[in-house]
Amino acid sequence: MLFFDNDYSEGAHKKVLEHLVKTNMEQLPGYGEDHYCQSAKEKIRRACGCPEADIFFLVGGTQTNQIVISAMLKPYEGVIAAETGHISIHEAGAIEISGHKVLELAHKEGKLSAETLKSYLRTFYEDENCEHRVFPGMVYISHPTEYGTLYTKGELKELSAVCSEYHIPLYMDGARLGYGLAAEGTDVTLPDVAECCDVFYIGGTKAGALCGEAVVFPRGNMPLHFMTMVKQRGALLAKGRLLGVQFDALFTDDLYFEISRNALRTAKMLKKVFREKGYELYLESPTNQIFVVLENKKLKELEKEVKMSFWEKKDGCHTVVRFATSWATRMEDVYKLAVLL
Amino acid sequence: MLFFDNDYSEGAHKKVLEHLVKTNMEQLPGYGEDHYCQSAKEKIRRACGCPEADIFFLVGGTQTNQIVISAMLKPYEGVIAAETGHISIHEAGAIEISGHKVLELAHKEGKLSAETLKSYLRTFYEDENCEHRVFPGMVYISHPTEYGTLYTKGELKELSAVCSEYHIPLYMDGARLGYGLAAEGTDVTLPDVAECCDVFYIGGTKAGALCGEAVVFPRGNMPLHFMTMVKQRGALLAKGRLLGVQFDALFTDDLYFEISRNALRTAKMLKKVFREKGYELYLESPTNQIFVVLENKKLKELEKEVKMSFWEKKDGCHTVVRFATSWATRMEDVYKLAVLL
Amino acid sequence: MLFFDNDYSEGAHKKVLEHLVKTNMEQLPGYGEDHYCQSAKEKIRRACGCPEADIFFLVGGTQTNQIVISAMLKPYEGVIAAETGHISIHEAGAIEISGHKVLELAHKEGKLSAETLKSYLRTFYEDENCEHRVFPGMVYISHPTEYGTLYTKGELKELSAVCSEYHIPLYMDGARLGYGLAAEGTDVTLPDVAECCDVFYIGGTKAGALCGEAVVFPRGNMPLHFMTMVKQRGALLAKGRLLGVQFDALFTDDLYFEISRNALRTAKMLKKVFREKGYELYLESPTNQIFVVLENKKLKELEKEVKMSFWEKKDGCHTVVRFATSWATRMEDVYKLAVLL
Amino acid sequence: MLFFDNDYSEGAHKKVLEHLVKTNMEQLPGYGEDHYCQSAKEKIRRACGCPEADIFFLVGGTQTNQIVISAMLKPYEGVIAAETGHISIHEAGAIEISGHKVLELAHKEGKLSAETLKSYLRTFYEDENCEHRVFPGMVYISHPTEYGTLYTKGELKELSAVCSEYHIPLYMDGARLGYGLAAEGTDVTLPDVAECCDVFYIGGTKAGALCGEAVVFPRGNMPLHFMTMVKQRGALLAKGRLLGVQFDALFTDDLYFEISRNALRTAKMLKKVFREKGYELYLESPTNQIFVVLENKKLKELEKEVKMSFWEKKDGCHTVVRFATSWATRMEDVYKLAVLL
Repeated sequence: MLFFDNDYSEGAHKKVLEHLVKTNMEQLPGYGEDHYCQSAKEKIRRACGCPEADIFFLVGGTQTNQIVISAMLKPYEGVIAAETGHISIHEAGAIEISGHKVLELAHKEGKLSAETLKSYLRTFYEDENCEHRVFPGMVYISHPTEYGTLYTKGELKELSAVCSEYHIPLYMDGARLGYGLAAEGTDVTLPDVAECCDVFYIGGTKAGALCGEAVVFPRGNMPLHFMTMVKQRGALLAKGRLLGVQFDALFTDDLYFEISRNALRTAKMLKKVFREKGYELYLESPTNQIFVVLENKKLKELEKEVKMSFWEKKDGCHTVVRFATSWATRMEDVYKLAVLL
Repeated sequence: MLFFDNDYSEGAHKKVLEHLVKTNMEQLPGYGEDHYCQSAKEKIRRACGCPEADIFFLVGGTQTNQIVISAMLKPYEGVIAAETGHISIHEAGAIEISGHKVLELAHKEGKLSAETLKSYLRTFYEDENCEHRVFPGMVYISHPTEYGTLYTKGELKELSAVCSEYHIPLYMDGARLGYGLAAEGTDVTLPDVAECCDVFYIGGTKAGALCGEAVVFPRGNMPLHFMTMVKQRGALLAKGRLLGVQFDALFTDDLYFEISRNALRTAKMLKKVFREKGYELYLESPTNQIFVVLENKKLKELEKEVKMSFWEKKDGCHTVVRFATSWATRMEDVYKLAVLL
Repeated sequence: MLFFDNDYSEGAHKKVLEHLVKTNMEQLPGYGEDHYCQSAKEKIRRACGCPEADIFFLVGGTQTNQIVISAMLKPYEGVIAAETGHISIHEAGAIEISGHKVLELAHKEGKLSAETLKSYLRTFYEDENCEHRVFPGMVYISHPTEYGTLYTKGELKELSAVCSEYHIPLYMDGARLGYGLAAEGTDVTLPDVAECCDVFYIGGTKAGALCGEAVVFPRGNMPLHFMTMVKQRGALLAKGRLLGVQFDALFTDDLYFEISRNALRTAKMLKKVFREKGYELYLESPTNQIFVVLENKKLKELEKEVKMSFWEKKDGCHTVVRFATSWATRMEDVYKLAVLL
Repeated sequence: MLFFDNDYSEGAHKKVLEHLVKTNMEQLPGYGEDHYCQSAKEKIRRACGCPEADIFFLVGGTQTNQIVISAMLKPYEGVIAAETGHISIHEAGAIEISGHKVLELAHKEGKLSAETLKSYLRTFYEDENCEHRVFPGMVYISHPTEYGTLYTKGELKELSAVCSEYHIPLYMDGARLGYGLAAEGTDVTLPDVAECCDVFYIGGTKAGALCGEAVVFPRGNMPLHFMTMVKQRGALLAKGRLLGVQFDALFTDDLYFEISRNALRTAKMLKKVFREKGYELYLESPTNQIFVVLENKKLKELEKEVKMSFWEKKDGCHTVVRFATSWATRMEDVYKLAVLL
């Protein structure tokens, strides 16, 4: 069976695992107070170009979104997101259970435009009854988006400017940030992200770690008693080392970016194969997710030997399917898939 | 100044107030255990044709929506509503603060169609990842809607059938239910509402009461310990009599419906005036809310002598404005407004 | 039947009701924007000696506690209260459903001492693991307490000083504040309350109003967007006038205090009767609640003609029972009760 | 430096880590659908003697308590716990943020007695106003308790009987369950736990795993859509394998119990040392936590070479300190500590 259904099918990258094994019996303080967490944070600060950044390691993406958003919003505020955003649809109501509304705006290939955002905010404050509504208190974007698309540096700056104008933070979900930053043709760097966003996370789970996301508050702007709020939401690891050691490995010798490039190389080859074989791409994604329109008959046939993700029905005879590559994808599996196509 | 900005500008209808005055010094048990509450419930049961209905009096509309919805949903469920629904926009996130998502669907003049609903539910359960999403656990409609429009009996039955098929309750927000049931041409009666819905409320605040909404569970299906949940959400009145006495008056000699008709008579006259004077109606509402497109110049002029509600900007030169009549509107005020138009 | 079971058995005081009747058909803006609300606020500011106070009218006591506490606490904070506090026991978990813990401390006759408070706070911050605990973010007291007892001015100042030292607000639940301030022998005035507390409410429901509590932020310290938070918790009245008009009457010509004195006069007489007839008072309450130990046989007998409140079982043969007087209690009913005793 | 401050200073037990390494590059489905999770569940079912048990793997203890409790309680219910319970004090309000009150009862050395429980429940339902209070909806105990003490089988059965009588589930926090079940002299087995409790968890984090707790619903009584509620609370791991693989190792060849015994052997030796050297034990704990009264001078001296946990101040000159051993504690470290004592 070939696995192209997601980017979290394997365990950890070899070097990450080795670091865990090597440090395993070291006796360390709990709750992220250990020196591996400190070292990992320092390396991430350097990679972001933010010497004053506050960094906190959490376990998973939905958890991170829930905690960051609920810790930063006031009770009367909601978070703006594209209607296709992960928090809008695929997190089982994690934002709402924390008491906040997701204010869903129109998107274009998963992206939220500065124009759409600005128009929403302007109209909101023009409404004489806005005191009876949920105040927009934060903007959530993901990079890459749910469709694998990327913001340009210019677009991020524009979003950032609108947020500044309305005094609300810009938050980037970076579950697949490595795959975004390592993409061909992108003009966005990690320091750019740190400059444009008020808070963002660097995803580990989908890029070489067993689990783990590094939340970055680039200007030392972590909310007061953030650790207590993490504990209160059940997300404080006793063995914080598990996250620190992994990020320490990922941010040593550029490992995070290097392994991300493997996903992009294999995805590029796979897109080439699809195109050459005449398959219709549902949209052009520059990252590790490929959305393809398959005839249902072909889909059935492929499913016997390939794992992929159902995306949506296109019509009675066609289905949109997602193929994902990752840091662990082997080019030989792409070739095997090519044969099947 | 002429008041057409809403349907809650005055206090209570004369007969409601008289009943409060007359019973004022009677010593009664608290928390809705008094005989006026019992009498009012009995009268409402009769009006609904539901001898087994459970009835609970609450103070206001947003409160009622929040309590009914959060008491009936499971933690992993959200409530479906039109994207224009009151709970979707104008309740400051009251549903979300109780932990639940409002699942917003497309509307037509404020109405949710059975087709739209069914399509959403079908697609939801076809999604292989639906366990990662908010489960649809209830359907919310309002009658009249935010646009003053009304469901037909056939439409209510269709919605009810879809809800039954998916085993989720249908909830009707009846903040202006009197104005809906008394409308010309409607084929929906209170017993019809009770038959089609699993829970609904009969609005008092906007139809003759100082405050108060009567929640009806038509088939004795009030959730267990509902009173405790009401208390927990800060909504249990010590002097429950305040609500019982008012509804007792409103459901004596058909008062609720009779006074609703005044709103409809004055609205009908006002619509006639608008049409005769060549004003554009934004949509055809059969109830007590009239949406009119005004030139901004005319709007400015009118505002000096008339109170109305801003609805939305239509274009650079025109604004949509809402005029509302009520149980208390005097025909002479409509004539005065006619002169100004 | 004689009613001594609580202080909310009747409707509103005659003058309050008259004001409602007189203003009933006046057309007023909604949501507390009317001039009666403004007038009532101004009168309360004057009575408190706080020209800059922010005032907000809410409907009931549990609602007020829930909203004030949850609007002022940070997510990682809880509220300190006596273990007998109303929020600790009798509000069905209204504080917890808003996400906060009630940190319950030992009491003496319902009162929280500055010493107990200070000791708790000191020990909390000495705990090296306090980041894993709920931070104390507010102190809740009630005056009179659940046992009808009163703080002295000195005690309030001490509590206030401890709160200041730890930078947490002091909140007073004044559901029966009138009965406390009008008590014989108290040295606490309304301006004292305003000086010592950061927020408090003046109870209307139990002192002459149909419903209504006036929340006072004495130094203009109402939280930002408080109205939106009130709306979000379902507590914003469309006809805010209902509360404004009532408090306008209550704070005209000292009515609030004058009618409170009736409760104290009748309570004093009733206590005298109990003592003369040899009944054991469970504790000495200077206000309108009287706790008496009754033989179960006597209790059974009395219950046929008198309504009172069960408080707790004392032993196999005795029960503690509460008798409450109010603004509406007639001295002749006290005499009738005396005969039965 | 000697580490006796807790039982989570090291990473994972060697065999657990080896299993992670060996399975690392295997491509597996996400979210706990992999065959290691299935295998681990099957082994746990066998160890519990519960072929029909539902099992769910979560990451940490506070998270598990929050999710299990909030998923099983009705909105109007709270959870009963000893006032020293972990959920009462050391989880930063995780239960309250999920909307529920912890109903704290008196304890004896950390244990809740059936008598105390029954008396509370009886008194609760005798209160005529109990509808205004938080309903007791679950009983939480931990085994071992916060003080390292253990319930006997008889005590568990009694608690279980009271719970059955009142129709509320009994939940056991087993963060250190291994150390409890492997203790000398205990008559409680894992099947006993499964028989007496309606839900419990087997702690991995403190007994050989990097992270992970196995929640067991012994009679197939996992709440409907539990996975969605886990996701909604941010606790669903994409790489569920991380937990499945570890528990698969822990429940192979009795590893979980075998490694627990190391903690008990070293604790026994350490207690012997304390007694022989004339130190006062604060209480007799049969498990891996030892509470010792130290002179402050001695404490200061020891702190230079030993890590231990502050428990509480005893008086001006003495402090209660906790020493914990674990699966990883080496007897030679105990001897080194003995020399320092």
